[in-house]
Amino acid sequence: MGAQGDQDMTGAARFVISVDAMGGDEGPAAVVAGMALSARKNPRIGFILHGPGDTLGPLVAKRRELAGRVTLRDAPEVVSMTDKPAHVVRHGQGSSMWSALESVRAGEATVCVSCGNTGALMLMSVIRLRKLPGIYRPAIAVMWPSQNPQQHNIMLDGGADIRADAKDLMQYALMGASYARNGFGLKCPRIGLLNVGTEEHKGRAELREAHDLIAANAASADFEFVGFVEGRDLPGTRCDVIVTDGFTGNVALKTGEGIANLITDLLREAFAYTPLSRLAALLAYTSLRRVKKRVDPRRANGGVFLGLNGTVVKSHGAADATGVSSAIKLAFDLAQSGFTEKLANRVASATPLDITGNGGEDARHDTGDDNHGDLAP
Amino acid sequence: MGAQGDQDMTGAARFVISVDAMGGDEGPAAVVAGMALSARKNPRIGFILHGPGDTLGPLVAKRRELAGRVTLRDAPEVVSMTDKPAHVVRHGQGSSMWSALESVRAGEATVCVSCGNTGALMLMSVIRLRKLPGIYRPAIAVMWPSQNPQQHNIMLDGGADIRADAKDLMQYALMGASYARNGFGLKCPRIGLLNVGTEEHKGRAELREAHDLIAANAASADFEFVGFVEGRDLPGTRCDVIVTDGFTGNVALKTGEGIANLITDLLREAFAYTPLSRLAALLAYTSLRRVKKRVDPRRANGGVFLGLNGTVVKSHGAADATGVSSAIKLAFDLAQSGFTEKLANRVASATPLDITGNGGEDARHDTGDDNHGDLAP
Repeated sequence: MGAQGDQDMTGAARFVISVDAMGGDEGPAAVVAGMALSARKNPRIGFILHGPGDTLGPLVAKRRELAGRVTLRDAPEVVSMTDKPAHVVRHGQGSSMWSALESVRAGEATVCVSCGNTGALMLMSVIRLRKLPGIYRPAIAVMWPSQNPQQHNIMLDGGADIRADAKDLMQYALMGASYARNGFGLKCPRIGLLNVGTEEHKGRAELREAHDLIAANAASADFEFVGFVEGRDLPGTRCDVIVTDGFTGNVALKTGEGIANLITDLLREAFAYTPLSRLAALLAYTSLRRVKKRVDPRRANGGVFLGLNGTVVKSHGAADATGVSSAIKLAFDLAQSGFTEKLANRVASATPLDITGNGGEDARHDTGDDNHGDLAP
Repeated sequence: MGAQGDQDMTGAARFVISVDAMGGDEGPAAVVAGMALSARKNPRIGFILHGPGDTLGPLVAKRRELAGRVTLRDAPEVVSMTDKPAHVVRHGQGSSMWSALESVRAGEATVCVSCGNTGALMLMSVIRLRKLPGIYRPAIAVMWPSQNPQQHNIMLDGGADIRADAKDLMQYALMGASYARNGFGLKCPRIGLLNVGTEEHKGRAELREAHDLIAANAASADFEFVGFVEGRDLPGTRCDVIVTDGFTGNVALKTGEGIANLITDLLREAFAYTPLSRLAALLAYTSLRRVKKRVDPRRANGGVFLGLNGTVVKSHGAADATGVSSAIKLAFDLAQSGFTEKLANRVASATPLDITGNGGEDARHDTGDDNHGDLAP
């Protein structure tokens, strides 16, 4: 049960998601609850679930929605949030994370979902799935709430690598554009490059170089480049995809979370302040819930690792059942759209930056190498 | 009227603030309105106001609160938001910004307030006021709303310089601690260093070096070092002062603004959605206002330039009268507390990093120079 290409009772194709049950703050019960939520909504999802069999068996057995739709893979070891990535890669072969990636590597599933340690998951993904030819730094694409018609913007890198040079940023633009096209159905996504001002003379030297590189690739890669954007444009309407290095992206992401949490706390206190405000809170309940739903990080949950031979959805470490279910929905949508193959084709046709011809796995492209815009071989 | 050391009608000392009327998005009328708000609340403020005399004269004359408390300095030229800093410094001698700084340089006022172009204001401040001995990179300290007892956290650098090495970050910690002690009355402020994770092995090499440098200075400089913090701690309660480079700080600041604006917009829409939600909005008006006041960037308005011979308060470019008045209040508090001298003493006694002895104006301290913690000469 659960192999790729299976069918559900109506005969439609079933897509199998490989799920790492362990490593999240809420433990495997939240992951299994999230799977049950998704299974109830979508009859076309199947699962391979990885973790300690004696823990997972009873959890799955309790959920009627999951009957006959889950293959269990016993993997007794767990990667913890405090494990160093390099240690995990050397010693993590018995872990649920490793096992979950193996299912993608073996072609049993096209997408893997994990709530675990981001650094370890990225390093393990790179080693097991390998980078796409021509890609030096894979990236994590994350979503921001926005007032754009699609209700979300994409930002990358959300924290896969604390460094990114001009060419990495240009590849992030290409990968982000591809994700926006497939994930949001945007024909010509608007791409912005994150900086401290919108004037072209501002910012670090590598950003000015990246600006010119991205501009040179916009037409051939079917996106619109809006130039430099600022922090306020991450949840704004000036563009659909924001490109930045993983350090800045990660700080911005957690800052946004922090401000959203502060405002939620302050609203809660304000509405508990007087009897009148408590009455208002009752009447406003639906309105407040609507806003919370829009900015709730759990609903936009799931960073996607881009630039690998296979797709990995990294769910928030603190994800509860709603968050896990949201990550599974994203994984399903991407599996169904054949996103991995489309992205690979886009990168292959648009960025022959690796002029050494060894597949880009180890060849560091030199920052001084100035063949940007030179898209023909 | 208006010279330092004047007295108000009760005989108490009056503090003179030097105000640049030009360069803000809302124009000089908003600046004069902000001055009037401050003058009404505080009889101990006097002003020297810089800008085109024929524009400012009538604006001041309309405000009864300002009668007899404003000295006008005619400066016909205006630094615009799009002027390049280097150009402004070469050609800006006739500008209101230059004139406003001259009043501080000449000792007529101890604090200057401007809404203008940040880059130009910082460069001009460095050239006219000069850096404190031993300081290589001055910083902009900005405020974040938080649930700490003082209701705000301090972050620096908010965007004075896009670069900062380990020693700059250590000096930011010292300056931020001094600001928190004088501005918030915190005896032993808690300092955090912004990174992508709280584990000590994470982040860029210069951040790990800065971590050790700051830790080595904590005891002698009377602050508690909490180690690495994340974006969510900027508006959080883990520390009172957050240290980061000006690129990351500026992106985080604008990201926080963007998220706050998005939530405000979504709340407005949600409360206009149905008749019931409109009624709830009426009842919740006071509660919502209370929250808005807490997170309103205009109320925490005013970044402070630290590390100069003189204090400069940079108000938000989009500041309205409330924002300008808030920046003036901050300027007054700092002038009254003798903050500039206290900070200079703290830096002089705690950071003899400049071992060349030429006053630190041009001596770049080498990143490899490892005499941290070596506080005695």
